[in-house]
Amino acid sequence: MKELRQITIAGLGLLGGSLSLAVLRGFTGVRVVGFAHRASTRAKAAELSISSVVSDNLLESVAKADVVVLATPVRTFPDLFESIADALPHGCIVTDVGSTKSQVHRWAAELLPGHVNYVGSHPIAGSEQRGVEFARDDLFDGARTILTANRRTSAAALAILEAFWTGLGCTVQTMNPVRHDRVYANVSHVPHVASVALVNATRKDDMQYCGKGFLDTSRIASSAADIWTDVLLTNGEDIIKGIDRLTEQLGRIKAAVAAHDRARIKQLLARARTKRAELIEYRVSRKELE
Amino acid sequence: MKELRQITIAGLGLLGGSLSLAVLRGFTGVRVVGFAHRASTRAKAAELSISSVVSDNLLESVAKADVVVLATPVRTFPDLFESIADALPHGCIVTDVGSTKSQVHRWAAELLPGHVNYVGSHPIAGSEQRGVEFARDDLFDGARTILTANRRTSAAALAILEAFWTGLGCTVQTMNPVRHDRVYANVSHVPHVASVALVNATRKDDMQYCGKGFLDTSRIASSAADIWTDVLLTNGEDIIKGIDRLTEQLGRIKAAVAAHDRARIKQLLARARTKRAELIEYRVSRKELE
Repeated sequence: MKELRQITIAGLGLLGGSLSLAVLRGFTGVRVVGFAHRASTRAKAAELSISSVVSDNLLESVAKADVVVLATPVRTFPDLFESIADALPHGCIVTDVGSTKSQVHRWAAELLPGHVNYVGSHPIAGSEQRGVEFARDDLFDGARTILTANRRTSAAALAILEAFWTGLGCTVQTMNPVRHDRVYANVSHVPHVASVALVNATRKDDMQYCGKGFLDTSRIASSAADIWTDVLLTNGEDIIKGIDRLTEQLGRIKAAVAAHDRARIKQLLARARTKRAELIEYRVSRKELE
Repeated sequence: MKELRQITIAGLGLLGGSLSLAVLRGFTGVRVVGFAHRASTRAKAAELSISSVVSDNLLESVAKADVVVLATPVRTFPDLFESIADALPHGCIVTDVGSTKSQVHRWAAELLPGHVNYVGSHPIAGSEQRGVEFARDDLFDGARTILTANRRTSAAALAILEAFWTGLGCTVQTMNPVRHDRVYANVSHVPHVASVALVNATRKDDMQYCGKGFLDTSRIASSAADIWTDVLLTNGEDIIKGIDRLTEQLGRIKAAVAAHDRARIKQLLARARTKRAELIEYRVSRKELE
């Protein structure tokens, strides 16, 4: 990445830490400054050699950055944008790795100075684990990253971030933030809600008898509650529509079961099976799954 | 298993085939007769040496059995019980590996002769795959098997099946069929319905953008539609109650999102996270998970 000399990553959790390791592995000569608010995180990050430098000073850490990546919970972005606004160098690219985008584009437009460029990034990677101790330099290998851009977004900045994520091993696609939030409500946020609701609906005494199906279906309910609270709060409208669609589909299955309608039950189950088989086939054809 | 000389398994799919392989591996000197309706299944089973003998004659295959295991879809059980009733030897134990039990106990009481003993078996093992070609001799290693028994069930037959499944590497627990069906509605059948509803609620064009969370949450929607149609039809009441509970929990999250109630959203997410963490901890303590 000849355009980049310094990347600053604010927030050294699973995502921020892994991104730092991936940059150090992938881009020779690029300096990564990792900022973390907590002393305990900084100590662990230094011990694990997560970044070139671990900083406790946000303004200093961004002052010479070509790209600043926010890797903290979405709710912290407005304060961070405000804090760094005056310290950001001219032409700097600001991005983030959050799961919702429309609201972040609005905050960026409002709070960042005109001489920097905001582009949204959403790497489709992560796990239910959290913390710098789970950071891995291969977290983004083969993952997709969605970049979000609207009419205000700089094409040059978008091109640099596309090269950046591609260089880290990601497949990159660009969407406008409104479409991004609708799509990810459907394929990520609502499944998360479903997983949480399923666990909350299950009696603790019964749960111990579960098999692998329940463990898989409920896995994402183990994710960090505060990060997902932010997701739900910043994409509420799309998520509410998605919950309504899910509830409607549950109602269809319930009605078919109540009516002992074998043909209809089988049709509903077969529809899902076929749809998922097509998804898996598509992913395998792209070598994104084995 | 000194009590057993011959086991007959009717149905050589993933479960029946794996059970046959596990018996051959685990119990020296026990003969396994595998019955399959379809010639193509029998040919594959013979080629893979799935059982001691592969039979196309149901009545002959059960005539000298100490234990008969039905490993076909639940809807076939009444016909199979009727067909084999006169051919079963005195004292024979009849069981099955289906996922619902109350209805099967009723069918057994009605259709099997008084000189044989029915006990329900539900090994908590399997996958979304199907067919004898996926059979594995280690499918039951470390799995739980729930035995179901009511007041009519022979204690001697129950003890033999307990030794049988334990000998195959399972942890065995006994429940009455009513409790079994309520518990597995909650931890298996309703999660299955949720997974199917989630896939059906998601637009195909959006689905391609999904990450690992969606793939895990939807995995069980890839299971065989006809087998699960039987499950839904034979445990309808418990499943309907479970769908109602799930819908209610979805409604709680929706209401909290609509009200932008951060504390409430976080509480609902944290509740699921804690509950699942306790489940994982319990499983790890029993060495059922790593």
